[in-house]
Amino acid sequence: MKKLAKNAKKASKELLRLDSKMKNQIFDELIHHLEKRKKDVLEENKKDLENAFNNDLNSAMVDRLKLTDERFDQMVAGVEAIKNQPDMVGEFYGEFTNDLGLKIKRQRVPLGVILMIFESRPNVVIDCAALALKSSNSIILKGGKEAKHSNEILGEIIQDSLQKFISPEAVQVLASDSREQVEELLSLKDDIDVVIPRGGHGLINYVYETAKMPVIAHYQGLCHMYLDKEADVDQAINLAINAKTQRTGVCNAIETLIIHEDILPKIAQKLVAKFDSKGTQLKVDKGFQGAITQELENATDEDWQTEYLDNVLSVKTVKNLDEAIEHIDQYGSHHSECIVSTNEKTCAEFLKRVDASCVMINASTRFNDGGQLGLGAELGISTTKLHAYGPMGVEQMTTSRYVVLGDGQIRE
Amino acid sequence: MKKLAKNAKKASKELLRLDSKMKNQIFDELIHHLEKRKKDVLEENKKDLENAFNNDLNSAMVDRLKLTDERFDQMVAGVEAIKNQPDMVGEFYGEFTNDLGLKIKRQRVPLGVILMIFESRPNVVIDCAALALKSSNSIILKGGKEAKHSNEILGEIIQDSLQKFISPEAVQVLASDSREQVEELLSLKDDIDVVIPRGGHGLINYVYETAKMPVIAHYQGLCHMYLDKEADVDQAINLAINAKTQRTGVCNAIETLIIHEDILPKIAQKLVAKFDSKGTQLKVDKGFQGAITQELENATDEDWQTEYLDNVLSVKTVKNLDEAIEHIDQYGSHHSECIVSTNEKTCAEFLKRVDASCVMINASTRFNDGGQLGLGAELGISTTKLHAYGPMGVEQMTTSRYVVLGDGQIRE
Repeated sequence: MKKLAKNAKKASKELLRLDSKMKNQIFDELIHHLEKRKKDVLEENKKDLENAFNNDLNSAMVDRLKLTDERFDQMVAGVEAIKNQPDMVGEFYGEFTNDLGLKIKRQRVPLGVILMIFESRPNVVIDCAALALKSSNSIILKGGKEAKHSNEILGEIIQDSLQKFISPEAVQVLASDSREQVEELLSLKDDIDVVIPRGGHGLINYVYETAKMPVIAHYQGLCHMYLDKEADVDQAINLAINAKTQRTGVCNAIETLIIHEDILPKIAQKLVAKFDSKGTQLKVDKGFQGAITQELENATDEDWQTEYLDNVLSVKTVKNLDEAIEHIDQYGSHHSECIVSTNEKTCAEFLKRVDASCVMINASTRFNDGGQLGLGAELGISTTKLHAYGPMGVEQMTTSRYVVLGDGQIRE
Repeated sequence: MKKLAKNAKKASKELLRLDSKMKNQIFDELIHHLEKRKKDVLEENKKDLENAFNNDLNSAMVDRLKLTDERFDQMVAGVEAIKNQPDMVGEFYGEFTNDLGLKIKRQRVPLGVILMIFESRPNVVIDCAALALKSSNSIILKGGKEAKHSNEILGEIIQDSLQKFISPEAVQVLASDSREQVEELLSLKDDIDVVIPRGGHGLINYVYETAKMPVIAHYQGLCHMYLDKEADVDQAINLAINAKTQRTGVCNAIETLIIHEDILPKIAQKLVAKFDSKGTQLKVDKGFQGAITQELENATDEDWQTEYLDNVLSVKTVKNLDEAIEHIDQYGSHHSECIVSTNEKTCAEFLKRVDASCVMINASTRFNDGGQLGLGAELGISTTKLHAYGPMGVEQMTTSRYVVLGDGQIRE
């Protein structure tokens, strides 16, 4: 692992010499190799699917693992899209000239070597390798063993595409699943600049405890939507349904709906009917129960703490905005938080006081996503406040340094 | 400590409600209290100086500890300067409207609670408290025991100034020096968002090993200046002298001068004479020794690794730019690196390949400083690449989140 990390570091220095034109050539080469070897990749993927079947993996996991013809083409189109994003590496900004005639500016530069630890989806390998190349970083991709065969061949294709231009160690895919390997990698702080764990609770806690280098965690999304007393009722129902049910297994879906008690008579019964039609299981507090005719399951303190990642929603009623914000403060995971209200002052107050990577006003939480927010492809969504907060795209894979141009200026 | 951190977190939520006008009132109150109690502060500082004398502290430390009449006034002027900086908290940028009519923008928000661990200079307490207030962060300031009395009274004055407006726990000064306290603070990752150690090697390693929250280290400056074969000789000498001798105990002074062998005949003897007149001790490699008449001390591998923080300079000769960059890569601390050359291509190559928080071209490394680079006051200079790289001012004490304004948009 030490040698692997050293090679990644060495390749990261070579990446500093690549300009956009050369990077585009590598993207073209990668697309070419992917297309040429599509059949091989789908075959290797089938081996993973067979193993998944033999190991009784649940259908959601199998679905995430599966590379269909169409998904493969989407993956290749993703590389093309990343290629076509503007190249911000080396970009200067914030330039000014000081009293002494020094030109002072800031410049976007890569982070160096990124270690990414993730679970089953094989397309992550290609997405993240393309993002790393775009941002001129080396990347070490440690996938899960479920996707071993798929990840291995994709890693091979990437390195085949790189080698004409640069050390292929700029992208290294570790397809096996050894804890010792990961533990060793997490200790190599001189050669790995940052580790990004993307996945479940267990993985992320383990990385936090073990890593000697900075961690940017892509943690859970315990997201709320607050329906204010001055919410537009139809809009509120529409937004709540979308934020919960459009896709339930994702981090930017809501887990708890918070409702101002004054609007309950107008909205509670309609919400129950609408969620019922979507098959959503509601767990409600006393306030909400009092406003409806059906008997629903009680929400407990544990519900406020649970990211269901499923078609389940807890419902909490509050007396005022303060109570709503306190609840979010206590239980939220700083991911996506939403207010629905026609009162601009209330919205502004919510925005001022709620701490999350993305705050929505009268819009579905499902929009907290790199593609939707205009960043393009993303590594994931950071809930870490330092360095990157929210979707982590190419920009967040760079840092800024200062550049000072003089003609002999000294400090007196 | 747990309660202290919880109070800091609570105060950080109150800070979210302050607008610029209210913050300016607090700054005025702080300036007023400082001026009123100047005599008391200077008296408390005398106690620290007496202890320092009794404990045989070296003169450099005593000097850093000392608050003179003039230094006190500068400290107050520093608060006024921070007050007058633009308030970027809450600022929006990067706004665009997407196809669905969603307004998407980014917003600068505070980090939350900052723990700062630093050594003797009492003015750091006031500087950092003012920067924290400006950036709407709570701060816990843990100073060294040498400055106990000074820090204590300054902490008192700050809290007296805050209490009319906000929980005084927004700024908490720990003047005592208990390792157990620090260790406990470093474990409180739920209430402290980031720790910034500023000081010597030992402190920073300890914090890296112990802290459970993100660390932004303000580490050593092992800075180089490279005199290219196409350097202007007089300019090069002037810059080298300034970068080493203008102030020797600071992180942005150079420790090693790297010289292209082709320019040695023109420059070596002149450099020796000039550094001699400044009392600088030179430690040189064989290449440099061969170009001069005097016998100078040999530089060893240990010298390339040493931040002297003193009037000592190691000198290394190289055959080409590659060798210079390799040396910087191997020994530099990513702080400040400089090239002196009249060849623009060589400068561009150096800029492209050298990794440091500030790269200077034909300018003294002494300019890597918040005030000089237009940031205003700074907490220190970060050598951590994540989040802040270089001087850490108000901007680096914030992070960016996304704000999405809609009128009912849902994701299909």
